Amino acid sequence: MVAGVLAGQVAAGARLIRWLEDDDPRGRVALGQVYPHTGRAHLVGVTGPGGVGKSTLVDMLITEQRRRGRRVGVVAVDPSSPFTGGAILGDRVRMQRHAADEGVFIRSMGTRGQLGGLARASYDAMLVLDAMGYEVIFVETVGVGQDEIEIVALAHSTIIVAAPGLGDEIQAIKAGLMEAGDLFVLNKADRDGALQTLRQLEMSLHLREQSVAADAWKPPVLQAVAARGEGGAGIVDVLDRHAQFLRASGAFAAQRARRAHEVFVKLLRDAAAKKILASALARPDAAAVLADVAACRLDPHAAADLLLERIS
Amino acid sequence: MVAGVLAGQVAAGARLIRWLEDDDPRGRVALGQVYPHTGRAHLVGVTGPGGVGKSTLVDMLITEQRRRGRRVGVVAVDPSSPFTGGAILGDRVRMQRHAADEGVFIRSMGTRGQLGGLARASYDAMLVLDAMGYEVIFVETVGVGQDEIEIVALAHSTIIVAAPGLGDEIQAIKAGLMEAGDLFVLNKADRDGALQTLRQLEMSLHLREQSVAADAWKPPVLQAVAARGEGGAGIVDVLDRHAQFLRASGAFAAQRARRAHEVFVKLLRDAAAKKILASALARPDAAAVLADVAACRLDPHAAADLLLERIS
Repeated sequence: MVAGVLAGQVAAGARLIRWLEDDDPRGRVALGQVYPHTGRAHLVGVTGPGGVGKSTLVDMLITEQRRRGRRVGVVAVDPSSPFTGGAILGDRVRMQRHAADEGVFIRSMGTRGQLGGLARASYDAMLVLDAMGYEVIFVETVGVGQDEIEIVALAHSTIIVAAPGLGDEIQAIKAGLMEAGDLFVLNKADRDGALQTLRQLEMSLHLREQSVAADAWKPPVLQAVAARGEGGAGIVDVLDRHAQFLRASGAFAAQRARRAHEVFVKLLRDAAAKKILASALARPDAAAVLADVAACRLDPHAAADLLLERIS
Repeated sequence: MVAGVLAGQVAAGARLIRWLEDDDPRGRVALGQVYPHTGRAHLVGVTGPGGVGKSTLVDMLITEQRRRGRRVGVVAVDPSSPFTGGAILGDRVRMQRHAADEGVFIRSMGTRGQLGGLARASYDAMLVLDAMGYEVIFVETVGVGQDEIEIVALAHSTIIVAAPGLGDEIQAIKAGLMEAGDLFVLNKADRDGALQTLRQLEMSLHLREQSVAADAWKPPVLQAVAARGEGGAGIVDVLDRHAQFLRASGAFAAQRARRAHEVFVKLLRDAAAKKILASALARPDAAAVLADVAACRLDPHAAADLLLERIS
């Protein structure tokens, strides 16, 4: 199967992703063998508030990347969905028109009940697509929550998508996402209020630029009408320029090591927590603490402190 | 200050919430003293996709609860915002018209950089508002991600808000949120497509009802036009009925113990993970593993397994 993944066979890749999601030990072994062959793909995160047309935009970008002869992988992440394994919800159905194209592989990721594991599962899927030889991999999220920010942080380049007239949502972008974006796209740019939203974005970016180094990347703001296929070439031009910028400074390769380090620490942390929690709760004196918590005699903070102190 | 909180003084309550957010040891001590006085408030979670008008709905529900003579607390949660301490974003400004009313206390919670801690901070804020004597506490989130679901799971009653014409978002509700709702509100019910969305919601609920016990709570679907103040009385009637239902079965009080248990386990887990991670990374042989990860010779899963094995 490892040979199949490295040869770019869709069935082999899909099976490996599924194994990794299911924590199947065979997945771990295969990943170890596939891992040295990763690091070539340009990983592009696409995020932004609901309703701005992220899936339609990714659909357009797939078309443009294919026009340039590149093989494209897509990891479509939906933290609110318990479905995975290629089930694509709502608008994402549109992307499926690329399903017949052998140069495009779309994989949908949901939570399947295991909260918190989505960033790790997305990372694993990106590694597999990378090893399969897809040259550009888009990671698209449904919203702008903590999970989503964590997921796009795994990419080389992050596109933040906005749309006119989402006043509240633009506020959220300003507050939490301005720093994460390498490229801002105002989609639905033919709608009322486009100019105003564009100005808001540009002003926020201007403020941000004043606090960064002179040779830092300056995130551009582009306009698009993805539903009509307008603006794709300009966006891919900027993505190519950003990848070039990262390669020139060595940041492209360095980011792979940084991502691996972060995922390693997270995995270690989760496994260690599971282990120590089980042993703490199995202590003979833990029952009394749990009873005090259940009877609301002891608040949760005090109870946790108490048990931790005894473990030490 | 504890006396101030129990007497319902806003300054004392705001300070305690801030201390708890900042992990100030004084906060822990005060919470321990305040904790036995909690458990009276009816905790109501309000969630749903972006753009359905959750804040406007909460604003209307505050007005209706005040009309019934109840003191109201609001915890407005925004995982994408690094701002807290009463900073209210966007639409939530509208709620601020209640700020002059001594019977209403609104507290906004953001991440302030500490990912994952938002559910705990929201729980702490609810405890403080509860101890201050607010009879109804609304916890409102901005979206429907994992964090949001975790937060509303801390409430007695959960309102899921939808709006007409958000096809994609309704899909998300169906997939992840149908089980979490005790009451569904179709807001903006005067808009095109209201009837269709209403039917979708009712059909999903009907499917859900077939798999639950006969004496289980049957979540109703209500309509509202919150921007015009329409539908508030009906929603509060159902909330009162749900609280009554929970009290009759003992579930109202039991939920307090369940919440406390969950938060306790989470706190213990986080603290234990922090501790064991530090000691694992301080091992002399950890440096070689970290170097292998950095050089991409070892994949993150294998590296974590290796170090965990050595700890055991």
